[in-house]
Amino acid sequence: MREFILLALRAKTSDFDLENLSLAGRMDLVCRAISSALFVSDHVRKDTVIHVFLNGPNDPPKLISFFGDSIINIEPDEKSIAKLILFALKKGKNLKLDEEADVLQGIKISKKSFEKFIEEKSTSHLYYLNKKGKDIREIKFEENSLFILGDNLGIPKNTEKLLKRLKAEKISLGSVMLFASHCIVLVHNEIDRKSY
Amino acid sequence: MREFILLALRAKTSDFDLENLSLAGRMDLVCRAISSALFVSDHVRKDTVIHVFLNGPNDPPKLISFFGDSIINIEPDEKSIAKLILFALKKGKNLKLDEEADVLQGIKISKKSFEKFIEEKSTSHLYYLNKKGKDIREIKFEENSLFILGDNLGIPKNTEKLLKRLKAEKISLGSVMLFASHCIVLVHNEIDRKSY
Repeated sequence: MREFILLALRAKTSDFDLENLSLAGRMDLVCRAISSALFVSDHVRKDTVIHVFLNGPNDPPKLISFFGDSIINIEPDEKSIAKLILFALKKGKNLKLDEEADVLQGIKISKKSFEKFIEEKSTSHLYYLNKKGKDIREIKFEENSLFILGDNLGIPKNTEKLLKRLKAEKISLGSVMLFASHCIVLVHNEIDRKSY
Repeated sequence: MREFILLALRAKTSDFDLENLSLAGRMDLVCRAISSALFVSDHVRKDTVIHVFLNGPNDPPKLISFFGDSIINIEPDEKSIAKLILFALKKGKNLKLDEEADVLQGIKISKKSFEKFIEEKSTSHLYYLNKKGKDIREIKFEENSLFILGDNLGIPKNTEKLLKRLKAEKISLGSVMLFASHCIVLVHNEIDRKSY
């Protein structure tokens, strides 16, 4: 299975304006990442899960998970995905710490810290994208891979320390800094090439 | 220079609803392709031009060109880009065949057929994406490369014949059918890797 988590540190965790996603803590970037993770041109990738960790105002933290094997009624455009996020945040409004709720088929929300989430994923092989990492083209991927991505703020120092402690592997996609949605396309392509 | 042209055969060429880009002949897909072509995480790619050939109702054909070296005030989200397209279509409303108009700095619109456009590009090395093509990782790119991409309908048979006549080279990105925006990310990454 291919699993991604995007750290969207400023993305809003309460209500936001669907007409201006960029002002909702770069929710546009979050939506494009979800779209890149789940879609190929004519279907949804069944073998993929993407989690988005939202940590902006007014009710952080929120973790929303999209499961490719069961999700229905999702479209690849930003606004359709933003509507799903907004609906998830409504469903998750009264969650207490570490509680989880079903949103729609294939979508869950929980109120969970990134640290807790990542510690629960200890059976997955963790990778995070970093220019100084090993070239992705030289990586032999493990069966269950979890890719950790920053938003336009990158991955905070403290989180990097945690990832180091958990022996997450640094991988590089090239020398140009890209959006999370672009990184996901490149990761998928590399695994696709090695799987077929 | 890196140049892309997206054939958006159903994309609207008159007014469209900014709140439902998908219904405007998959204008969402067009916007994501423009975003992927022009943006890296913290700046616009100066060495890139993307042309979108719109051929849907009500006033086809329309060719809108975005020049990375001169464009200003562009944001990477779908809606911001859709607003630029809508503005360009308004500016290009009364163009006669083969006429061109400036839209904003770094954006032009013309009323030109794809055939005419591509014949004018005879000094560029033409590539088009096709599963049966040569693996992009084995390509040594020419200085001036033009990449031709289809939308979700693909490249029509007649256009393929023209491309063959012009000796356009087929290149493959892998076995999975991707959105045009994903293909652009992969092309950029490959050239980035070979340029630095």
